[in-house]
Amino acid sequence: MTKNITIHTHKISKSDRASQKNQRPCLVWFTGLSGSGKSTIAGALDERLFEGGYHGYIMDGDNVRYGLNKDLGLSNEDRRENIRRIGEMSRLFVDAGLITICAFISPFTEDRRQVRALFKAGEFIEIYIKTPLAVCEKRDPKGLYKKARRGEITNFTGMDGIYEPPQSPELVVDTATMNPDECAQIIFDYLLRHELITANRISSLPSA
Amino acid sequence: MTKNITIHTHKISKSDRASQKNQRPCLVWFTGLSGSGKSTIAGALDERLFEGGYHGYIMDGDNVRYGLNKDLGLSNEDRRENIRRIGEMSRLFVDAGLITICAFISPFTEDRRQVRALFKAGEFIEIYIKTPLAVCEKRDPKGLYKKARRGEITNFTGMDGIYEPPQSPELVVDTATMNPDECAQIIFDYLLRHELITANRISSLPSA
Repeated sequence: MTKNITIHTHKISKSDRASQKNQRPCLVWFTGLSGSGKSTIAGALDERLFEGGYHGYIMDGDNVRYGLNKDLGLSNEDRRENIRRIGEMSRLFVDAGLITICAFISPFTEDRRQVRALFKAGEFIEIYIKTPLAVCEKRDPKGLYKKARRGEITNFTGMDGIYEPPQSPELVVDTATMNPDECAQIIFDYLLRHELITANRISSLPSA
Repeated sequence: MTKNITIHTHKISKSDRASQKNQRPCLVWFTGLSGSGKSTIAGALDERLFEGGYHGYIMDGDNVRYGLNKDLGLSNEDRRENIRRIGEMSRLFVDAGLITICAFISPFTEDRRQVRALFKAGEFIEIYIKTPLAVCEKRDPKGLYKKARRGEITNFTGMDGIYEPPQSPELVVDTATMNPDECAQIIFDYLLRHELITANRISSLPSA
């Protein structure tokens, strides 16, 4: 005999998951040119959060471009779809209670606005990693600027590809005056100030 | 003066995140017909995990079909892309340390195999929610079987759409002999037995 399926009314909510993790989930969105320092600063922030016992996660080109979005190229249309999917995926990470960190060039204002629109006020924190093009090109960690100069890559952001800087980001991080750890500290302090995380919490790291 | 970017060698790893959460992250993948009870059982399992202080998250049609995959329809090609994206997204949730629960019809063996291939041995737990078509059609929680009978939906799994049952799933859950809570308990016991979670752990729920 088949028993009836009981529909459960109590579903674990975002706030349940957030209070389990003792933090307010949010999306920390880094935008900036290739080589501006997004992933490095994101890594330093993630480390700082982890050491404080917070539950975070980073998404960047390394784990998204060759996975979820491996079917997408660098046309403007594909860049838009890239950011749309990342935004939707981030919404679920935030729903799961995590302090979610995204580090993508995300060159278009409208795309970033659409990601912001998926979140409640205060949940989306746009951080402009402001680094002069000349500095990014000098660093050129992946050799992409050289390729773009040689014409081997087209529509490369900052060169022949458009970058629209944020008009009113929650934070501007100036890598010309601070090192990555200092940049991460400023963001950490922002999260504290806005009570997304709390100071002096007891670490939830297992003692075993 | 622009300071040099220091590349951090310590990156928070999957095992760091897992030990923070005191669990072994994995993907619990439910497959079965529409109306078989996947989401209900997933909800009961998630609740059980949460009560035990574990960090889990459910993905199902409700939070994926109208978000990340809202550009996809019900053609076989779109169903494949639907499952591919969910698999890639789940890989990041597992990387983030979570016990990730997916509840999707996922009718094709090959698609489920491709998701499995993204994970290490023991991390992907395929669970066949086995419910006779006649029972699913009688339940018809979303009225989809009625629509399919009237020809308003085509390629509907179990009717004119193919469903390939798993040949060697980690678990078969027979909803004809158990209610959803009993089904969830069997899965919970599987996770315990395989040491993905541990018995008698102290709840990590905040005491405040």
